[in-house]
Amino acid sequence: MSALDNLLNDLVIANRILANEDVVDAYGHVSVRHPDKPDHFFLARSLAPEFITGDDLIEFTLDGKPVDKNEKRAPYLERFIHGGIFEARPDVMAVVHAHAEDILPFGLTNGTPMRPVIHSGSFIGSHVPVWDIADKFGDTNLLVANVEQGQDLAKCLGSANIALMRGHGFAAAARSLIEVVRMSVYLPRNARALWRATQLGGEIKYLSQGEIDARNRGYSPYSVETWRAWHYWATKAGVGKLVTRPDKGKAAAKPTKPTKKAKGKRRK
Amino acid sequence: MSALDNLLNDLVIANRILANEDVVDAYGHVSVRHPDKPDHFFLARSLAPEFITGDDLIEFTLDGKPVDKNEKRAPYLERFIHGGIFEARPDVMAVVHAHAEDILPFGLTNGTPMRPVIHSGSFIGSHVPVWDIADKFGDTNLLVANVEQGQDLAKCLGSANIALMRGHGFAAAARSLIEVVRMSVYLPRNARALWRATQLGGEIKYLSQGEIDARNRGYSPYSVETWRAWHYWATKAGVGKLVTRPDKGKAAAKPTKPTKKAKGKRRK
Amino acid sequence: MSALDNLLNDLVIANRILANEDVVDAYGHVSVRHPDKPDHFFLARSLAPEFITGDDLIEFTLDGKPVDKNEKRAPYLERFIHGGIFEARPDVMAVVHAHAEDILPFGLTNGTPMRPVIHSGSFIGSHVPVWDIADKFGDTNLLVANVEQGQDLAKCLGSANIALMRGHGFAAAARSLIEVVRMSVYLPRNARALWRATQLGGEIKYLSQGEIDARNRGYSPYSVETWRAWHYWATKAGVGKLVTRPDKGKAAAKPTKPTKKAKGKRRK
Amino acid sequence: MSALDNLLNDLVIANRILANEDVVDAYGHVSVRHPDKPDHFFLARSLAPEFITGDDLIEFTLDGKPVDKNEKRAPYLERFIHGGIFEARPDVMAVVHAHAEDILPFGLTNGTPMRPVIHSGSFIGSHVPVWDIADKFGDTNLLVANVEQGQDLAKCLGSANIALMRGHGFAAAARSLIEVVRMSVYLPRNARALWRATQLGGEIKYLSQGEIDARNRGYSPYSVETWRAWHYWATKAGVGKLVTRPDKGKAAAKPTKPTKKAKGKRRK
Repeated sequence: MSALDNLLNDLVIANRILANEDVVDAYGHVSVRHPDKPDHFFLARSLAPEFITGDDLIEFTLDGKPVDKNEKRAPYLERFIHGGIFEARPDVMAVVHAHAEDILPFGLTNGTPMRPVIHSGSFIGSHVPVWDIADKFGDTNLLVANVEQGQDLAKCLGSANIALMRGHGFAAAARSLIEVVRMSVYLPRNARALWRATQLGGEIKYLSQGEIDARNRGYSPYSVETWRAWHYWATKAGVGKLVTRPDKGKAAAKPTKPTKKAKGKRRK
Repeated sequence: MSALDNLLNDLVIANRILANEDVVDAYGHVSVRHPDKPDHFFLARSLAPEFITGDDLIEFTLDGKPVDKNEKRAPYLERFIHGGIFEARPDVMAVVHAHAEDILPFGLTNGTPMRPVIHSGSFIGSHVPVWDIADKFGDTNLLVANVEQGQDLAKCLGSANIALMRGHGFAAAARSLIEVVRMSVYLPRNARALWRATQLGGEIKYLSQGEIDARNRGYSPYSVETWRAWHYWATKAGVGKLVTRPDKGKAAAKPTKPTKKAKGKRRK
Repeated sequence: MSALDNLLNDLVIANRILANEDVVDAYGHVSVRHPDKPDHFFLARSLAPEFITGDDLIEFTLDGKPVDKNEKRAPYLERFIHGGIFEARPDVMAVVHAHAEDILPFGLTNGTPMRPVIHSGSFIGSHVPVWDIADKFGDTNLLVANVEQGQDLAKCLGSANIALMRGHGFAAAARSLIEVVRMSVYLPRNARALWRATQLGGEIKYLSQGEIDARNRGYSPYSVETWRAWHYWATKAGVGKLVTRPDKGKAAAKPTKPTKKAKGKRRK
Repeated sequence: MSALDNLLNDLVIANRILANEDVVDAYGHVSVRHPDKPDHFFLARSLAPEFITGDDLIEFTLDGKPVDKNEKRAPYLERFIHGGIFEARPDVMAVVHAHAEDILPFGLTNGTPMRPVIHSGSFIGSHVPVWDIADKFGDTNLLVANVEQGQDLAKCLGSANIALMRGHGFAAAARSLIEVVRMSVYLPRNARALWRATQLGGEIKYLSQGEIDARNRGYSPYSVETWRAWHYWATKAGVGKLVTRPDKGKAAAKPTKPTKKAKGKRRK
């Protein structure tokens, strides 16, 4: 399998993980930049992530146009989120857009800014901007429906990992697919811990910048600890057999077959 | 399949979607107006929506009487909700009544009126009246059990999309079945985002009237974005095979067969 | 099937419903009074309700002793809850004891007394006493482990339908098995609606005494509306085939087989 | 089966129970001290607990080194939690480390200290210290990654049963595997009841020291009441067949075979 084939295989896995972990449902999507053509990216056609297979992937240019001029299948309306972020951020190789319920309140009010409180939330980064489409575009249907809106979102994101989208969801950006998926799975978890902590009174201890940095230094996409979650989530999502480890280093230990494919449960 | 057959087929799908999305359980129901006879509507017999098949549908006149005088099966006690709304609202073609848990608190207190905060909640509309059966009828068992009570509920609903029913649930009304189902699925989600936002402090940003209007303009029952959710929910509810697209316009892309264990295929 | 056989068959169904609806788990139990011997009752042996079959039922006298002197199987430690309530309340024919999570906070503090706010919660009754075992017995392991403690709980329950047990769970009592199960399923739902309503601000509207009375008048164990839920819950719990309708009146409509036996999801 | 074999068999069961009860997911682990070699303990290799089989267990010395010098499989990074506690606490025979969501808020703020409020939470103990790795080690990635950090955590734990780990999770320690699993399952439940009680207003009644002590006196790993939960959880986790009762005392009643669709049998 070529490097590109492997990446697209991982993109299918990513779609399934995000669906099974309740980060996306009918809506939401994940993309990867073309490893050899920085002005191209791959994103599924307009279909719920849970159903995505390798045949559903479309190659786009950063302006959201399919590379294949004969492409007939409907694309995601909000592909401009991905194109906008890839354009503004040469360091970013993968993007997620999702409506994951638990993060929504943090984009609706500035009472409690989203910040990492749990260690697995460190990948969110110390600052999470909130993008309000109305600031520049007034009354809209809140969807990122063109290049200009995607660029405005990317501008708000700046150098951060995640931007909340007021009344809508979030956009996450990372240097690898595994990392953007991990960030997207843990963001709602961090949100839940934070909002519950606000209810207990007292002063909340957030992760320090030093802790966030230490965790960034310690984790790579294929470190044992990171890969364990990717493999676990993929297995629970029913795509364990697709998982590979094309990085150099230890040969992949053969994962045990899961006895139950229990779906991740959403906690309120 | 005739247009009526297709509508009734969709009504079965709607029942199953609402059950699978936890909007209804043992109780709750969804109806459609007869496309050719405005004073008739279709509603299942008294049975949990999860179990409804095409054989369980009964045709009623607006006063809640079965058209077939020999009809022996027990009807839903609260069919008067549907008749009352269809009578008062010639624009409405489908109605849902449900007890969906997460909306109940908003009908119990006026501390935080229900209003759209998330984009998918825009279909709720800017104003959500609360109907209290006790206002006109004093102490009752809270069920809409006759024509007069159904008419009073419809009067409270007015031109809105949804009325909360104090201590009971809600009634939703829309110009199409797909839209009333979508509204009913997103109402609890909007409720959850709103009550959590109230706990975070600060000032909540609600959708503006302009945003609500923009979203109404942009969505039709068979727009790609709307239909994607209908298809997704139907598939998760186990009735994906019943889904059709009888509207004019683009030929329906054949949806990928949904299996939880579908494996991604390598891109060639 | 004799009347007793039918009752015990329903007792098995009741166990399964309570387990599937997350009212009980490893702990919790349901009993029925012997229809012909008021000083006897039936309760399963010490086993999780989810696993109960007809062979697991034991007949007890009100003091918690097995009628069969050769009975070797371990009984539930807290059978004294059942015996105590049956003894004090000749009108009660069925009792549930459970730890259902969502009601626990209401037994821990007097900040917000448990009262019906949603119509399906009316069966809780207008007054829900809280029993604290420490009041009479000082420091204990909080279990109702003897006749005296069971009698003290029953005394606290008085003529109410439900008593919360501080730091432990609740005990529910009704004139029929279907009604005590219904009460036990809706009690947590009422609890959730009430605690969320407290977070929204404003003044909460509780069900009035007149509404509670109207609902009691309108419902019998085999009314169409009540039986629909019993059948639905039994079917979802996998024991739909055991359900019968031995009351006089309409012949039982043949229930549609459920396409999915989805387990009730617990909402937080 | 030797005593050691039985213990390791139980360790597999424990892994599966903790996964099925949502205490652990991709992360988290459980260990047992070697019954004959107090300076050795058993812990799985780096794999999600849901997938653990008997072949995945590794024997370590308290400093976290595999006994088998040829051991190639990656160990859990945080095995030092287990070694540290086993070293400091000769009375402890089993340790759990987990990130269970619901306890996280209590480690983030001192507004509401974690204390038992429900009877099944008594095993938490009256005092639950909060360990903050930053106190001694400054900015880290929050993982217990060496002997020194494991010892510092054990020092904070002192003679308590559980220590919360700020921004991370908890560590639980008990004299038996069944007890540490029970404690770990009920800790999140106690957390949920406590935080909801804080929202209801009024003064919360915590378990008294006398009640905690009474419950400790009354429960042994194989008491009927304790073993019922172990068996139930194991069965729900799909490993019911692995459960044995090697303790002296009553012969184990043959548990009913658990099938979700088990039908009640008519009583003869």
